[in-house]
Amino acid sequence: MTETRVPILFLGLGSVGGALLRQVLDTRAVLARRTGLQLSPIGLADVSGLLFDPDGLSAETLQAALEATQNGRLLNSLPGVRSLACVDGALQAGPILLDLTASTETRPVLQAALEAGCSVALANKIPLAGPWDQAKPFFEHPRLRYEVTVGAGLPVIAGLRYLLDTGDRVTAIEGCLSGTLGYLCSQLESGVAYSAAVTQAGSLGYTEPDPREDLSGRDVARKALILARTAGWPLEMADLTVESLYPASLASVSAQDFVGAMSALDEPYAGRIREAQANGRVLRYVARVNPEGGSVGLAAVPKESSLAALRGPANHVAFHTARYDEVPLVISGPGAGPEVTAAGVLGDVINLALRYHLPQATDRAEERS
Amino acid sequence: MTETRVPILFLGLGSVGGALLRQVLDTRAVLARRTGLQLSPIGLADVSGLLFDPDGLSAETLQAALEATQNGRLLNSLPGVRSLACVDGALQAGPILLDLTASTETRPVLQAALEAGCSVALANKIPLAGPWDQAKPFFEHPRLRYEVTVGAGLPVIAGLRYLLDTGDRVTAIEGCLSGTLGYLCSQLESGVAYSAAVTQAGSLGYTEPDPREDLSGRDVARKALILARTAGWPLEMADLTVESLYPASLASVSAQDFVGAMSALDEPYAGRIREAQANGRVLRYVARVNPEGGSVGLAAVPKESSLAALRGPANHVAFHTARYDEVPLVISGPGAGPEVTAAGVLGDVINLALRYHLPQATDRAEERS
Repeated sequence: MTETRVPILFLGLGSVGGALLRQVLDTRAVLARRTGLQLSPIGLADVSGLLFDPDGLSAETLQAALEATQNGRLLNSLPGVRSLACVDGALQAGPILLDLTASTETRPVLQAALEAGCSVALANKIPLAGPWDQAKPFFEHPRLRYEVTVGAGLPVIAGLRYLLDTGDRVTAIEGCLSGTLGYLCSQLESGVAYSAAVTQAGSLGYTEPDPREDLSGRDVARKALILARTAGWPLEMADLTVESLYPASLASVSAQDFVGAMSALDEPYAGRIREAQANGRVLRYVARVNPEGGSVGLAAVPKESSLAALRGPANHVAFHTARYDEVPLVISGPGAGPEVTAAGVLGDVINLALRYHLPQATDRAEERS
Repeated sequence: MTETRVPILFLGLGSVGGALLRQVLDTRAVLARRTGLQLSPIGLADVSGLLFDPDGLSAETLQAALEATQNGRLLNSLPGVRSLACVDGALQAGPILLDLTASTETRPVLQAALEAGCSVALANKIPLAGPWDQAKPFFEHPRLRYEVTVGAGLPVIAGLRYLLDTGDRVTAIEGCLSGTLGYLCSQLESGVAYSAAVTQAGSLGYTEPDPREDLSGRDVARKALILARTAGWPLEMADLTVESLYPASLASVSAQDFVGAMSALDEPYAGRIREAQANGRVLRYVARVNPEGGSVGLAAVPKESSLAALRGPANHVAFHTARYDEVPLVISGPGAGPEVTAAGVLGDVINLALRYHLPQATDRAEERS
């Protein structure tokens, strides 16, 4: 089989970017044998600059970049790093562009990439969760994928697209979309105090340095919005009601003061847990969307339900459709972590490459038979 | 966008074939607009013969065929039907061939189709569940798909392939793969006697006319074998232990005598339910496979587990992998029914057509940007 070289360009080389680069290097021989695709990293960028070679970065350079970022150094600690302004030029090599950042600044380069004929895979939710008129072109573009923005490596977006592609009508989507808040609910349920549970989640690396980033529900709301928009419902963030897991009065204090004030929330949340248990229910942080809008917040779900069966950081997404009306189609499992997230991006890369980078389909079919 | 005509040829026009033909007709305008694919049914075959037009069967002919088969008539009740021997010639039109039968006889035509450069989508499990040396070429062929052979419309095979494609290592697969036996377990659990539950399942259309087809576990074993072989484990049926839900002494009596003898099984199964409940467990008909072999049969699972949370005919498949090690990736939902099964075949058809029937990928990318 003839091999087709597929250039890829990384924006962001944090935990997901590093895991993905390693997966690409580990799997590319097998992938080339099975599909004829030869993945070739031509560029690596972080906030400090760009390492770029249109013919593919050498194994030594890739290794040095992995080691640098693992040790907390930026790419500009390595020789040969160019200015970030060179990314636009790098798009001329026709790579699949990967946005593995959590940045609000990548929208222009994503647009430029699509206009230049490149494909794009996003782990970054921000470009998809802004105002609809800005996000719409991304949802409608055939060469842009974003599987891992919901449920990390779980094939949630793929499952939804499959329903839509085969003509099903989605009526509602609900689920637990945050591993962090899932863990928190599990801990509260087993009697751990709110303040202790948040602290534990932090020391396990489940929360951002400021836990309010997670507790606010904003990240879950972004995922709910991405699901809704994928389903074809052009909702805005304002169409979702979002319950924060801390009071508004603690929104503007410092992170340190927030941690100090958390114990005041122990009793109120313990009370909500007791109230749910008295009704044969358990609390889960649930996102629900339908064509009119949605909500994100704590919900008391029956003890026998599949949401109640979730343990710790597992995610769970249920699609209610015309065909799956009485019992929904459900995809569940761990919905966080650099390895599974990177794997999901790799899945997007493979799909894009198979669809847009291989030479004429008919020839290929003949070659293989 | 230029439209590409994609001929498709149906083998089997039962409940799944009929639902699929209707879905193709209902969705093809939308599909053409979104993807440029114009699905064109060129042939319909059942045991009685073949309706064929290489330029696409007319709307009137398709409608007449649907009406005939819905009313229990065979295709040879319609004018213009050819001998089944003409199917081989019809392959020269390069269709996607759909095996929607449950026949043991289709293997040669599937092979001929692949050799002629056609793509193939199977709802029929038989060609994939025979001896490995016969089934192997189908599992290894890039232009053959079989999503609905496990879990009907649930994206179970797609989920497994995604794990493998992205370099994950699957260590074990387990789940409830039979809507019929899931329903039976639910009924037994809620106190219904074995004989009454089997009779109910029959009157709901969940079982074959002879319920032993389902109760034997053979169909579940075929699905387990298909999962194992997809995972890359070349198992044979003999590598699976299969528990039948009736004793060997009732294997060779007539269907009528079996129904008469069922009540003798009420007490033994009620006893097993009680025993499980006394241990805080519930019975589920569970399939388990790993690289060495597997088992299919009743298992007592903890009341809080996600298998226990299954109700009625829902299916549930859990993938344990290197990346999903502590908590598996799970896909669940209703795993039977003509509409969702047909939708899964349509998904295969769309994927095959996008990959092998569209003109040169690069041109297409440019057209769209």
